[in-house]
Amino acid sequence: MSTGLDTPADVRRTATGPTAGLADGYAQTNLIAVPRDWAYEMLLFAQRNPKPCPVLDVTDPGSPRTALAPTADLRRDLPRYRVWEHGEPTTEPTDATEYWRDDLVSFLIGCSFTFEHALTRAGIPLRHLEQGRNVPMYVTDRECRPAGRLHGPVVVSMRYVPADLVERAREITARMPAVHGAPVHAGDPSALGVRDLDRPDFGDPCTPHDGDVPVFWACGVTPQAALVASAPPFAITHAPGYMFVTDVRDTDYRV
Amino acid sequence: MSTGLDTPADVRRTATGPTAGLADGYAQTNLIAVPRDWAYEMLLFAQRNPKPCPVLDVTDPGSPRTALAPTADLRRDLPRYRVWEHGEPTTEPTDATEYWRDDLVSFLIGCSFTFEHALTRAGIPLRHLEQGRNVPMYVTDRECRPAGRLHGPVVVSMRYVPADLVERAREITARMPAVHGAPVHAGDPSALGVRDLDRPDFGDPCTPHDGDVPVFWACGVTPQAALVASAPPFAITHAPGYMFVTDVRDTDYRV
Repeated sequence: MSTGLDTPADVRRTATGPTAGLADGYAQTNLIAVPRDWAYEMLLFAQRNPKPCPVLDVTDPGSPRTALAPTADLRRDLPRYRVWEHGEPTTEPTDATEYWRDDLVSFLIGCSFTFEHALTRAGIPLRHLEQGRNVPMYVTDRECRPAGRLHGPVVVSMRYVPADLVERAREITARMPAVHGAPVHAGDPSALGVRDLDRPDFGDPCTPHDGDVPVFWACGVTPQAALVASAPPFAITHAPGYMFVTDVRDTDYRV
Repeated sequence: MSTGLDTPADVRRTATGPTAGLADGYAQTNLIAVPRDWAYEMLLFAQRNPKPCPVLDVTDPGSPRTALAPTADLRRDLPRYRVWEHGEPTTEPTDATEYWRDDLVSFLIGCSFTFEHALTRAGIPLRHLEQGRNVPMYVTDRECRPAGRLHGPVVVSMRYVPADLVERAREITARMPAVHGAPVHAGDPSALGVRDLDRPDFGDPCTPHDGDVPVFWACGVTPQAALVASAPPFAITHAPGYMFVTDVRDTDYRV
């Protein structure tokens, strides 16, 4: 099993599960690769929705190379992918090479796992790591600002935080806008249209401790909700929680 | 003459000169409008060069409307424009309506005038305002990361800052990445390939006081240098220093 002490290259080569807590101190990203014909709308969608979709890199068409990790291969260095056709996930391979296309433009979008190291250092417990689970994620009733053919709801990740540490968690993450920044909400999930915290749309449910408050951050799975809503003919993404681990230090994204 | 007490709408309607110091407390932006066929590369160029090109809004093709100032008309609410053909500025009208095209996508890019209010409040003098001049801007020897057909050098704006206040200016502006963030350099201009501070490429020369240090920030005129280098068939921009004044508070862009 991988540990937080592994290098990013180690994790890219060996990880098979969700990547929260791995390669401690390095930024992680979401992946969404769409045909060139959809690339402008994807980039514009991200620009118009910077909280859920902070873009850290965009590849040239067909290229599996990113400036965020020059030796990595985006076709096979994530632990799990989702292949999409017409808005439906069709398969979840651990290697996407056979599905790759020459016209795919890959977008690497900041991931909240990147600020977890900073939260841990500040003494803020992370229940999903304590409980050995993927972080829970929920589709909200908030709509993204659309871009051409792309539209869909905001997705959030949720972490239970002790009530007296919520403000500290807000301060720490507000300084990292490239990995979703400050929470979009803390407290009653119904304010986001989320009905049941024990039934996340992606990832695993977590168990709160007494006095914990649910805190919600915008999530890079939002483009996958846009795939469902907008049904482009083809896309490849990461599987939620199974992120791309970069060679960039998390502190490089702190303002 | 306009004063800093004017509202953004007042400035949009009445300003005829450079906009530094006007509508104090409101964000200002650069404008670059390119044909839809070049929009993806322009947006990607901005994403890959976020220090000079922080995108605050992108319009739909042909639309003169922006979310940053819902009642404004981008075709006529800047004090001065530049019209470009094949990489050459052809005219500098005060109203761009007759040059507008249905396929133009407008990019509104953060401007360093936005953080000048915060610098002033911190007691940092602004020589260009004291001296009634446009801010000086320089083409550097640093190349932007290219995007498809778009490439070109980084342009910087320069402000003389008393040596003992340079660090304070850095701290204040670092918290505003959407309007160029921290300086790219302070001190010897030759480190940026700038030969003569008294001969700026855009704007006016300023006179330093004893003990002032030249401090350089990435500048939203960078896309205009990319027009020169890359020669797309058509574009409309603001004239350097003659910015679009938005209805958004400057503090909204502070992290």
